[in-house]
Amino acid sequence: MPERIFNFSAGPATLPPEVLAQASRDLVNYRDLGMSIIEMSHRSKDFIAVTEQAEQLLRELLDIPANYQVLFLQGGASTQFAMIPMNLLGAGKDKKACYLNTGVWAKKAIKEAKLFGEIDVAYSSEAEVYNHVPADGDYQVDDKAEYLYFVSNNTIYGTQFQSFPATHVPLVCDMSSDILSRPFDIRPFGLVFAGAQKNMGPAGVTTVIIREDLLDRAPENLPTMFKYRTHADQGSMFNTPPCFAIYVVGLVLEWLKNLGGLAAIERINKEKAALLYDTIDRLDFYRGHARRDSRSLMNVTFNLPTPELEAKFIQEAAARGMSGLKGHRSVGGCRASIYNAFPREGVEQLVEFMAEFAKNN
Amino acid sequence: MPERIFNFSAGPATLPPEVLAQASRDLVNYRDLGMSIIEMSHRSKDFIAVTEQAEQLLRELLDIPANYQVLFLQGGASTQFAMIPMNLLGAGKDKKACYLNTGVWAKKAIKEAKLFGEIDVAYSSEAEVYNHVPADGDYQVDDKAEYLYFVSNNTIYGTQFQSFPATHVPLVCDMSSDILSRPFDIRPFGLVFAGAQKNMGPAGVTTVIIREDLLDRAPENLPTMFKYRTHADQGSMFNTPPCFAIYVVGLVLEWLKNLGGLAAIERINKEKAALLYDTIDRLDFYRGHARRDSRSLMNVTFNLPTPELEAKFIQEAAARGMSGLKGHRSVGGCRASIYNAFPREGVEQLVEFMAEFAKNN
Repeated sequence: MPERIFNFSAGPATLPPEVLAQASRDLVNYRDLGMSIIEMSHRSKDFIAVTEQAEQLLRELLDIPANYQVLFLQGGASTQFAMIPMNLLGAGKDKKACYLNTGVWAKKAIKEAKLFGEIDVAYSSEAEVYNHVPADGDYQVDDKAEYLYFVSNNTIYGTQFQSFPATHVPLVCDMSSDILSRPFDIRPFGLVFAGAQKNMGPAGVTTVIIREDLLDRAPENLPTMFKYRTHADQGSMFNTPPCFAIYVVGLVLEWLKNLGGLAAIERINKEKAALLYDTIDRLDFYRGHARRDSRSLMNVTFNLPTPELEAKFIQEAAARGMSGLKGHRSVGGCRASIYNAFPREGVEQLVEFMAEFAKNN
Repeated sequence: MPERIFNFSAGPATLPPEVLAQASRDLVNYRDLGMSIIEMSHRSKDFIAVTEQAEQLLRELLDIPANYQVLFLQGGASTQFAMIPMNLLGAGKDKKACYLNTGVWAKKAIKEAKLFGEIDVAYSSEAEVYNHVPADGDYQVDDKAEYLYFVSNNTIYGTQFQSFPATHVPLVCDMSSDILSRPFDIRPFGLVFAGAQKNMGPAGVTTVIIREDLLDRAPENLPTMFKYRTHADQGSMFNTPPCFAIYVVGLVLEWLKNLGGLAAIERINKEKAALLYDTIDRLDFYRGHARRDSRSLMNVTFNLPTPELEAKFIQEAAARGMSGLKGHRSVGGCRASIYNAFPREGVEQLVEFMAEFAKNN
């Protein structure tokens, strides 16, 4: 087995080797302080600097205006599915929000939101196995909606919004699987959140970027930990934060900045994805799951002529040091997750193998 | 600065050097799989084995019967302050629970619980700056209480229950700062929880041990992530867990088992604490904060004659490679946190310095 394989896992996912090397050193002795990064008090000046730097880098990379707060929380996107309506709709059940059902994660968010208000599912691609995302003209947003919720990239199906919904209600977006993969204007967004374990770092931290005026919509009787205001007022240090995960996110952001930021990574991501989609389109053997107008730069989903060939493909790829190519258990098929940190040479090796496998089978 | 200092931090806290060394290696290449422990899919067989082994070791060390579930959750103890009453009292507000107010963390838990039911604070040591914990005769537990909640070790004040409350309602306990420091019988407990960052591993995972019959008391309309049942049914993998933190907890548990388990560590902890308390009692210079009958084996709190001498003491200790001796910002003074992984030689060095400092000042 080589020192390092090509890991196409959908998340937790591959990270830059230089980030891992730095984290490995700091895990024994952080900057010669004589203790590990995971042994440091979260209230020490050294760790506060770690958190502040991560926030600063994120603000810089995403060009986040001053009237947004950046929070580092726990509980994953699934906790946000509940916290968003708890905070933005309140407990009165008289408020309304609009959701786009473009996959399992959107559907789970809709389920939680229904506990807290009137939820209008303005669009659903469920009947077509979520093989596309809608265009603006495909649905209507109720003017009375507090927000429009959508998932920018649907990991399981390999679909991605090519542009974001144009509406005058605030956008709320689950960007877990494509945050930091391309530049975008955050100003139409009320809230953006992302679990770190795909494009930002390890599992265990969820970044929430929230417009300040939305912090105070929560009902008084919400538990302290479930109010965004609690975390905003304490710089994400109301209680002990997930220190190591925040620290690694900081390293990943630094790596991304050194690489040239979001414009640079978008070019690289487009090139990597094009290699795969061109192969799928060129060879009659493979069939892409996502509709062309909805194809994701992050997760490339495809089928082979039969499930047996898919199993053989995944097995032979693994033997060549390419792991994690099995599709999500809910849809089957194959999936190549090629987030920011996935190296181009791994994609080149995969498309070479795809051509060879198609020829031999 | 020496390679490694003595870190008396209250949490995140010092960890066994062999655990850090192993984690440092696995962060680059986990068991020659060609990827980091933080790059592995949480649903891979290798990572599921990591989680199962951590659970198994915890069950073995704490002698947990089969009718208890072990969960690895996120959000820290502060999230449990809300989840416990949300799950065990329901939303009807007609149920009752009994709480012992022995410190700031107990008080915060009481605040959250009051959102969900009738809370009887059966005892409080707040007026005496939480310098002790109650004995059984000091309070009454209402027979109709769903549970009796207490904090086994109060990190800030350096107090600890020497034996656990005897009552026939289920005990619910925040053991964040002394879990695994001594053997105990878990059978009178309905629920035990602990943030990992003091005695179990890094920040970012909270262990919940819950008796199975308590899993189904939650109201239907509770958000999915806040129901214990959700996590129990999915082996803590309903969503992506905090993989790295769970992995390190597993290493710490393995270290503890190899050391001889809870009986062995209790002996060591008693010896370490005795060195400090003997010094405090022997020298007229130092004054222990905790009442003698409530002294903690984990956090030793003490004052010097004046705040100026305390500042000087902390500064001189730091210059000798002993950090984290400042008391919690809410009470001041000094605090030496000497959890399981804190080495005896660090305590020896501290008591030597204490004697010298008392003589010179």
